[in-house]
Amino acid sequence: MNKVTFIGGGSFGTALAILLANKGYEPNIWDREEAVVDEINNKRTNSKYIKDVIIPSGVTASNNIEDAIKDADFVVLTVPSHIIRTVCKNFKEFIPKKAIIVNVAKGIEEGTNLRLSEIIKEELPNNPVVVMSGPTHAEEVAVGLPTTIVVSSEQMDKAELVQELFMCDCFRVYTNDDLIGVEIGGAVKNIIALVAGVSDGIGYGDNSKAALMARGLMEITRIGTALGAKPETFIGLTGMGDLIVTCTSMHSRNRKAGILIGQGYSMDEAVEHVGMVVEGIKACKAFHELKDKMQVSMPITDNLYDILFNGKDPKVAGSDLMERDKKHENH
Amino acid sequence: MNKVTFIGGGSFGTALAILLANKGYEPNIWDREEAVVDEINNKRTNSKYIKDVIIPSGVTASNNIEDAIKDADFVVLTVPSHIIRTVCKNFKEFIPKKAIIVNVAKGIEEGTNLRLSEIIKEELPNNPVVVMSGPTHAEEVAVGLPTTIVVSSEQMDKAELVQELFMCDCFRVYTNDDLIGVEIGGAVKNIIALVAGVSDGIGYGDNSKAALMARGLMEITRIGTALGAKPETFIGLTGMGDLIVTCTSMHSRNRKAGILIGQGYSMDEAVEHVGMVVEGIKACKAFHELKDKMQVSMPITDNLYDILFNGKDPKVAGSDLMERDKKHENH
Repeated sequence: MNKVTFIGGGSFGTALAILLANKGYEPNIWDREEAVVDEINNKRTNSKYIKDVIIPSGVTASNNIEDAIKDADFVVLTVPSHIIRTVCKNFKEFIPKKAIIVNVAKGIEEGTNLRLSEIIKEELPNNPVVVMSGPTHAEEVAVGLPTTIVVSSEQMDKAELVQELFMCDCFRVYTNDDLIGVEIGGAVKNIIALVAGVSDGIGYGDNSKAALMARGLMEITRIGTALGAKPETFIGLTGMGDLIVTCTSMHSRNRKAGILIGQGYSMDEAVEHVGMVVEGIKACKAFHELKDKMQVSMPITDNLYDILFNGKDPKVAGSDLMERDKKHENH
Repeated sequence: MNKVTFIGGGSFGTALAILLANKGYEPNIWDREEAVVDEINNKRTNSKYIKDVIIPSGVTASNNIEDAIKDADFVVLTVPSHIIRTVCKNFKEFIPKKAIIVNVAKGIEEGTNLRLSEIIKEELPNNPVVVMSGPTHAEEVAVGLPTTIVVSSEQMDKAELVQELFMCDCFRVYTNDDLIGVEIGGAVKNIIALVAGVSDGIGYGDNSKAALMARGLMEITRIGTALGAKPETFIGLTGMGDLIVTCTSMHSRNRKAGILIGQGYSMDEAVEHVGMVVEGIKACKAFHELKDKMQVSMPITDNLYDILFNGKDPKVAGSDLMERDKKHENH
C-alpha cells in the first residue's frame, strides 16, 4: 500500500488524510505545531483547524519531517501558497526521489508571477508535480459530503495515480491536462471574490454581483487563454465551480475584505481587520501586471487595482464599469 | 421619440417601463388584469407584482390592446414563456408591421422544443425579433441597482436599437450575435437550479452544489454547442451569470421545487406546493429528448429526469453520479 505524507495539518490536509484513512491507507501528517500533532495522535481531533470531526486511527501525525516523509510515495503539500517555496527548499533533502508531489494550495508567487507548480519544479526538479484543485470546503470533505475535484500535471500518468489514490464514492476526481488553466483558475478566483465583496459592501444587489462574477470570469478566461490555458477549463470545476463556492461563502476572507473595502475602509484597514492573508490582493497585483504585458483588456481587475492601490472610490469604479461604451459581450 | 409598449404588467415589465420613463420615454403597459392597470394609472404602484416601488408618471397602463399597441416601435413581451405563442397569435392583427418584438421570457416550447424567438417568428414572420436575457432580478432593476443584460437577434442591427433603447448608467446592455446560445442558456438554467435545489434538499453541501452547477453548465454547453451555439456564450451573462442568480436565490421557484423533491416529495407534490409553473421540469423533459436526438452525454439531466418521471431516489441518483468511471473533465 502506498505511503502518503501530508505537509501541513490544516483543515484541508486533515480532511484528505481522513478520506484516505477511510479508504484503508495509513497517512501521516507532518505539522510544525506540537499541539496539533499531539491532539491528532492522542485525542483524534484537530480542533484548531477542523471542528467536530473525529480523526480515524489510520491517521498519524508527527513533528519530525525526516520520519514523517521517509519512503513516501506521495507528498501532499497542504500549506498556504506563500510558503510553498520555503517548504520545498527546506524539506528537499528529506523528500524521496521518486515521490509524487501533490499541491493543493492556490495562488501565484509575488514578484515572479510564477504558478505554484512552476515554483515546485524549480525547487524539486526531479519529482513529478500534480496539482489538485476544485470547489472543496474541507469541512464537507472531512464528513464525506459529495465533492468533486480536478487533478492536472505535465505528466498526466502521474495525475492518474493521484486520481486513483483519492477517488472514492464521496470524492470524485477528474483529470484535466490543462495545467495552466487549472492553476490560473484557482489563483484568480480570489480577485473576483474580492470584487464580489466590494459590490456587496457598497450595497449593490444580486444582479451586480452576478454581472461581476460572469464578466470577471470572462476577463480571467481572456488572460488565461493568452497565457496558454484552454477556455473550456474556466467553465469547469476549477474555474466557475471554485468561483461559486468562494463568492457565495460567508467564510471567504477575500469576500470579507472586499465587503469592508466597499464600505469605505482602506485596503490596509481591511487586511488588518480580516487578520489573515488576503490572496485576492496579491492576485490582483500580479494579474494587473500580466495583463499589461499580454495586452489583454481586464476592466474589472483595473478598477479593483485602482481601488486597492490608488485610493479610487469603489462607487466611482462601479459607475465607470457601467458607463463604458456599448459593446459586444465577447469582444 | 420611440413608442414602447409592454405586453404584461408583471414585475419585469413594470421594472423595464420604469427604467424607460426615467430615461424620458413614455412607455405603455398592456395588462389583462383591470386592477393592475388601475393601480398603475391611479396609485403609481403595482403592489401585486413589485412591492415598494413608485412608478413614475411617464408610465401609463391600459386594458385595451388596440390602443396600447398602436404605433408602437417596440413591443416588449413580458409574459411567461408558455403563453408567448398565444399572445403573438391573438395580438397579431394589432401589432404594427415594423415594430421590433423584444422578448424577455426564457424557456423552450413543450412538444415542439422550439426556442421562443422561433415561436415568435412563426406567428409574426414579418416583425424583427430581439431577445433580451441575463441576471436580472426585476426588483433591483426597478430601483436602479447596477444590472447587465444581453440582447441578441438574427438581425443584429435591430438588437443594437434595443441596446440603445434600454442602456443607461444603471443598466448596461451588451450585444451578442449567438442567438441560439443566449436562448439555450436562459432555458436550461432552470434545470440546474432544480438540481441544485435537490442537492440542498438531500442535505448535501456547497461542494456538491458547486459541482452540479459547474458540471451542469458543462453539459449544457455540450448540448448547446451541438445545437449550434458558441461555447463562450455559456461563460457569459446569459449562461453562468443568470445561473448564479437563479441557483443562489431563495426566490427561485425551481430551486424551491428541487429542495422539496430532494426531501422526498414527488414531482407533483412539489409543483402543487410551489403553486406556480416550474420551468425546470419542462426544460428537463425537452433537453432529455434533445440529448438523445443529438447523441450528447448529459448524466445530470438524465438523473434529474429519472427522479422526476421514473421515481428514482434522489440519493441513489447522487451516488450514481459520483460512482461513474474515472474520467477527464472535458470529455
